This record gives sequence, C-alpha cells and structure tokens, in this order.
Amino acid sequence: MAAPLRIAIAGLGTVGVGTVQLLQEHAQTIATRCSRPIEITAVSARDRRRNRGCDVSMATWYDDPVAMAREAEADVIVELIGGSDGVARETVRAALGAGRDVVTANKALLAVHGTDLARAAEGAGKHLAYEAAVAGGIPIIKALREGLAGNSVQRVYGILNGTCNYILTTMEATGRDFQDVLAEAQHLGYAEADPTFDVDGIDAGHKLALLTSVAFGRPVDFPSVCLEGIRHVTARDIANADELGYRIKLLGVAEETEHGVLQRVHPCMVPKNGPIASVDGVFNAVVVEGDHVGRTKLEGQGAGAGPTASAVVADIMDLATGRGAFTFGVPVQHLKATPAATIDTHVGAYYVRLMVVDRPGVFAEIAAALRDAQVSMESILQHGQNPGEIVPVVMTLHPTVEAAATRALARIADIGAVVEPPCMIRIEDL
Amino acid sequence: MAAPLRIAIAGLGTVGVGTVQLLQEHAQTIATRCSRPIEITAVSARDRRRNRGCDVSMATWYDDPVAMAREAEADVIVELIGGSDGVARETVRAALGAGRDVVTANKALLAVHGTDLARAAEGAGKHLAYEAAVAGGIPIIKALREGLAGNSVQRVYGILNGTCNYILTTMEATGRDFQDVLAEAQHLGYAEADPTFDVDGIDAGHKLALLTSVAFGRPVDFPSVCLEGIRHVTARDIANADELGYRIKLLGVAEETEHGVLQRVHPCMVPKNGPIASVDGVFNAVVVEGDHVGRTKLEGQGAGAGPTASAVVADIMDLATGRGAFTFGVPVQHLKATPAATIDTHVGAYYVRLMVVDRPGVFAEIAAALRDAQVSMESILQHGQNPGEIVPVVMTLHPTVEAAATRALARIADIGAVVEPPCMIRIEDL
Repeated sequence: MAAPLRIAIAGLGTVGVGTVQLLQEHAQTIATRCSRPIEITAVSARDRRRNRGCDVSMATWYDDPVAMAREAEADVIVELIGGSDGVARETVRAALGAGRDVVTANKALLAVHGTDLARAAEGAGKHLAYEAAVAGGIPIIKALREGLAGNSVQRVYGILNGTCNYILTTMEATGRDFQDVLAEAQHLGYAEADPTFDVDGIDAGHKLALLTSVAFGRPVDFPSVCLEGIRHVTARDIANADELGYRIKLLGVAEETEHGVLQRVHPCMVPKNGPIASVDGVFNAVVVEGDHVGRTKLEGQGAGAGPTASAVVADIMDLATGRGAFTFGVPVQHLKATPAATIDTHVGAYYVRLMVVDRPGVFAEIAAALRDAQVSMESILQHGQNPGEIVPVVMTLHPTVEAAATRALARIADIGAVVEPPCMIRIEDL
Repeated sequence: MAAPLRIAIAGLGTVGVGTVQLLQEHAQTIATRCSRPIEITAVSARDRRRNRGCDVSMATWYDDPVAMAREAEADVIVELIGGSDGVARETVRAALGAGRDVVTANKALLAVHGTDLARAAEGAGKHLAYEAAVAGGIPIIKALREGLAGNSVQRVYGILNGTCNYILTTMEATGRDFQDVLAEAQHLGYAEADPTFDVDGIDAGHKLALLTSVAFGRPVDFPSVCLEGIRHVTARDIANADELGYRIKLLGVAEETEHGVLQRVHPCMVPKNGPIASVDGVFNAVVVEGDHVGRTKLEGQGAGAGPTASAVVADIMDLATGRGAFTFGVPVQHLKATPAATIDTHVGAYYVRLMVVDRPGVFAEIAAALRDAQVSMESILQHGQNPGEIVPVVMTLHPTVEAAATRALARIADIGAVVEPPCMIRIEDL
C-alpha cells in the first residue's frame, strides 16, 4: 500500500468534527478504496481545550491555521473555517503557496475569490476541491465537471439553501407566517441567529455562482447574480400558489440566454408535479440540462455534519487517488468572461399580489397600468368583496419580459388605493 | 496541449453513432476540458457501406472488432456491441490483453463476466469503465464510486429500466393492459421485438448487480439477483394501487440485511409522495442510502443515443485526464464475497389479488390459510358482490417474512374457488 495521504484540518466546528469522525470510522474502507490510508497529521481550531467529542490527539495542534497551512506535515489542507475573507482566505492562500492541495467547504470564499484561488492552485500545480461548498452531500460538482462533462449545459437550477426550503415547506404545511417559522427554525438550529445569508438568498447565490462557473466555463461572477430572498413571501401567497397549482421554492437558476448568462436567485412558483416541487424540508436538489444527456436531477441533504463531511471526504479521496480536476472544469486561462445578462431581460410569467382598498374603479386603474406597460393578465383570483376594506387582489401575468412587468408594477404601486408595495413572484415551468 | 487520446469504437449502432456525433460536435470544448484532444482512430461495425449519418472517414475501418482491439492505434477501446458473450466479450478481452483501457456500455457483459474482466484490467494496469451500462446518462457509477465513497452504503435502489417504466406509466395513464401497451412501446421503439430482457427484469437485474458490487464491495453476483418482471401486473392492479395510495414501479433494490446482501428486481407499490413514485416514462432514478450522506437520489434519462453517449464520453474524458478508478471501487482482491440473502428472507408488506368464485365460505377459507401461515391481513378491498361469478379479492398483508407470505399464497392457491394463481406485489416504503 502506498504512503498515507497526510491531511491537516483547519476548523473543528460541526463539519470539521464530522470529517474527523467519518475518516476515523471508515479508516479501513477508505484506505482500501484509495489504496492508501488517510492520516490526519495536524488540526487547528480556536479553543484547544474544548471537548468536541472526537479524538484529535494524534494530530499536531496549531493555534494559527495559517501557520499550519504553511508548516504542517501535510499534503492537503482542509479549510473548514468559513467566511469569504480573513483567516479562511489566508489559510487557503498559504496552503497553495506552500504547494499543498486544498479541500474546502467554503462557498463564500470561492464565490468571491474563486477565480484567483483557482489560478493560484494551477500556478502551484495543485488542486482546489470544494464539493462540500455546493449542495452539501450531493456530488453535483463532480457530476457537472466529470460525469456530464461531454455536454454543453443550457441551464442549471435548483434548491440550494436548506434553511429557506425548510421555512417554505413549514409555512406551507402549517399555514404559519415567515417570522414565526423563522424563529422556530432558529430555535431548532436550522437557521442562524443572523439569518441574512440564508433568507436573503446570499448563500444560494454563492453556490449558484460556483455552479455557473463549472456549467458555463466562466470566471466566478457572484456580483452578477440577481438576489432576492424569501422575507416577503406570506402564508397567503403560499395558499394562493396552491390554488393556482404551484408550490413556492427559493430557486437558483443559471441559464444561457440571448443576452448572456443569467444568474438569479429568487422565490419561484413551480408546478406541483414538476421535478422541483417535491423537494421538501432540508433537502437540496440540482437539475442540469445538457444538450445530450437531457434533464438530470440530483437530490440529497444540503447541509449538516454527515452530508457535508461525506463531500469533504470524497474530495480528499480523489486527491489520494490522483483524481484531481481543474477547479472550474477548465484551466483558468480558458474560462471565458462571456456577457452576463441582467434580470430585466428575463422572460417569464408572474404572480402578483396587491393589497388594495376595495372601492369602485380600482380595478380599471390596475388594468390601465398593465395595458400601458404592454403586459397582459392571464388570470385573477378574488375571494369575495369587502367594500372600503383592504383586500388582496391576486393575478398572474402572461409571459413577458421582466422590464415590462417591473414598469407595470411601478405604475400600479402609484395608484392611491394600492396600500402596500406589490408582491411579485416569478412563475417557472421547472 | 498534450498528445491526443486515441480511441477505437467497436459498434456503430445508436449509441456508437451518438458517441461519434457528440465527440465531433464538442471536440473543441472536450479538448479544453481534458487538456488534450480525443481522436477517433479506428471503428468497427458489421456493414461498412451503411449510411449512419456520421462521418467516420478519418478512422481506420476494421471488419473485425477483436482484431481492432488488438491492433488499432488506440489507447482506449470503446465497446458498444452488446451481449454478454461472443464478440463483445472477445473484444474487451483482446483490448485489455493488448494493454488498452476499455469503455463499455455493456451491462450484460459486466453482470456476467465483470469480476473476471476487472481482474484482467487490473492485471494489465488498465481501466474498465462502464458508466453508460447503468442508468444511461445518470452518472451513478461515478457518484457511488467517488462522490459518495466516504460512506458505508446501507441500501441502493431505483428504477433501472426505462422500457418497463414507460409501460407502467402508460398503463396507469390510460388504464390499458400490459400486452396492449407493450405492443405500442415496440411500435415506438421503446421496447425490443423480443422484450424478454426488459419486461422480465433481466436488464434491470444486470444493472442492479453492478450497482451492488460498487456499493457493497462484492464480486458481481448476478445469479443471486431475484428476478421478477412486470408481465403479471394488470390495469386492475394499477387502479387498486392508486386506491391504496401507491403507484407501481419496477424496482431494483440491493440492501444489507442480517442474512447477507439481498438483490431483488420486481414490481413494487411505492407511496405516491415518495422519492420514486414521481419518476415517470423513460426516466430512471437511483437512490443511494449512505451512513453519513443520508438519502441521495439521481434521476435522468436511462437510455437513448444522447444520454448513453454522454456517459460513454464522460468515461473517455476521465481516461484522457488520468482519472481512472478501480472497476468496482476497490481492487478485485479486496472484493468480499459476503453472503447473499435470498428473497425468502425479505420482510415487507404485500398486496395480494385473488380471482375467486363469489360464493359463501370462500373468505373463511382464505382467512384460515393466512392464519395457518401466521400472516396477518391489514386491509381488504372489495367492490360489490356478484354471487356465482368470478370476482377479484384484493388485500394487503402486514409486514411479514416472505417465506410465510409465500406459504400462505400456496395454500390459498389450493382453495377450489380460487381460479387463478394469486397475484402478489410487494409494498415498499420507498
């Protein structure tokens, strides 16, 4: 059997501990599968004395992960600290600078600095692996970069944030509102104390930016991702979606359009019997549409110690067996900065909910605003009358370019009887 | 850029032509992704003069694929002939014997001779790749062998035969019977003139045997696969399943049990809202249950030129970039022939349909037979009475060991008023 692959782990939080436990539990099988053992030679975390429920006594302890990345007796540095900058970034740079391979679960780091880090890895003749950064345990990076590599990808989309999916699924199942379910998710540990990254779509956007790079061979382009979260989705919208034959999911979608590659994260209404609607709770799913393979979907747990460690260990095993790949599927010099499309150019159907004072003539004003923006209504939902009161008016718009829909909604928002900013949710046939 | 990877293709049927077309259409992208071009240097097929709609004029023509495998100027032999023996097997053996890597889509060959061929590949220091042999375009072999390699797999199951799934989906949608829909599928090209391999579960069994090997690290063990096809499933059973909250799918299931690894292919009733029920038409799906990753599902097109070529080309690209892997995930010497469990030991719930003469006392006889076999009934469906006529009696049995269920059904079959062999379909919570 060949010499062990020596790894140093920076960060012993949930995922770090899960990785240590997996490597120890399956040490024998993993060694057989790789024809060499994996040996944890060094670890680094904030507090040396904390009991983490895993044994790292065989490893050299470093208080400073950057020093570890530079100095440890290790072939691979596993970065599980998190965050787009600061010590995580320094650790990865130091590791590549010292000629070591890197495995990371850090989507924020790669979404912001991925192209630079990939270039640094290539310059050092090393690999930067990040399966765990996108959709947790689902081997989607490998599938896109290797398993479907013969295809030209037309679209990749999916449910990339388990927290949002849990919140939306629970809102639907219980009829409760966003704030209430968010508080419960925080209590259960499914959402952070500061939920911004999750519920405002930033985390899904980071992951989408990485999928886009691999799928379309572009430098990572997080700033071009259109981001919209789920805070404005109400229990009423979910009930309306149900009545219209849809469910509401937070989707990330990257697609080749005539205006360039469009990357967008936002709540969507998707048909109840489609491939996305059935993905519930903390599960993630990614659909790849390739020109030869057709529609391929991968589904699994997007977060948690076990699934994330599964992905981290798969990357380590790839390095142990010499199965490294280019970070984004091709050498950095071959990534092409093709144009990025903006959400204005998106063409789709829309769900619109207005809160209006129920009085004669309001509907004529709304209809005129739509007409002026050259947007046509497909259907309208109304539940009884209530003269003088504030009532919801729900309509769906025929497919139109988003710039026109936005224009129409701006006019509608100016109507005196419309008392709240219109709520708009895109409808997708996904 | 490195030297081209030279490939020779044996077999220019649908998949062979699809592979040539994909390689030519995406030659530039593939070369960039692999850092080297893929060059088709030789081809072999039965009839040289036939117009196949693809240009192979740059390749050396061989009438004999075995000679090509031995002599062609090629690094990789791509075997797309099919069949478990004969020329396909000789071609693969000749290729490995001549020190060439092999890519094949041939599930029958590997299910029957896979362990021997893997040993030959290892002996030659070469690779035997077969992503296209299981579930068409879905990169499930790569996912199991690499992407989920850190896990101990507890169960792997799925819809592995698109023909059966198309037939069952169509029977359900139209209420038509098996023979009628089969004839249509044959007419549409979804089923072979001799449909035995598909509708009797053999093809799914071949694929399951390969999945089992990779998932559980065992030598390929096709003879142990319990095989049952879909010929006995009637439109009435599908309607009854619907009434009970199920859909009927032909599943392949491999699982670790206390009696050993159980491999089984048979029609199943699965809950309508579960991960399998929504997979329709010619789509395939495979679910992997790993101890760390949890439940992971991959879904896509299981057959056809495009999807299959996508998988063939992915294997070729892996070889071009040095990403080969052990055929079944570990060296052949480490495959462990752990015990194989038989279907008798399976524990599950059952759907039973009897055709009985509607006369007093029949039901007491049936109930006695169940009691004697220590099997307990969960529910019974009856649609009205029709004294003296032959009527269906449909019941579901509480989870029981299959040996007991089989015993009960044998006794029931002996009851005079039971005029057809009982139809039994397993119910699974998948």
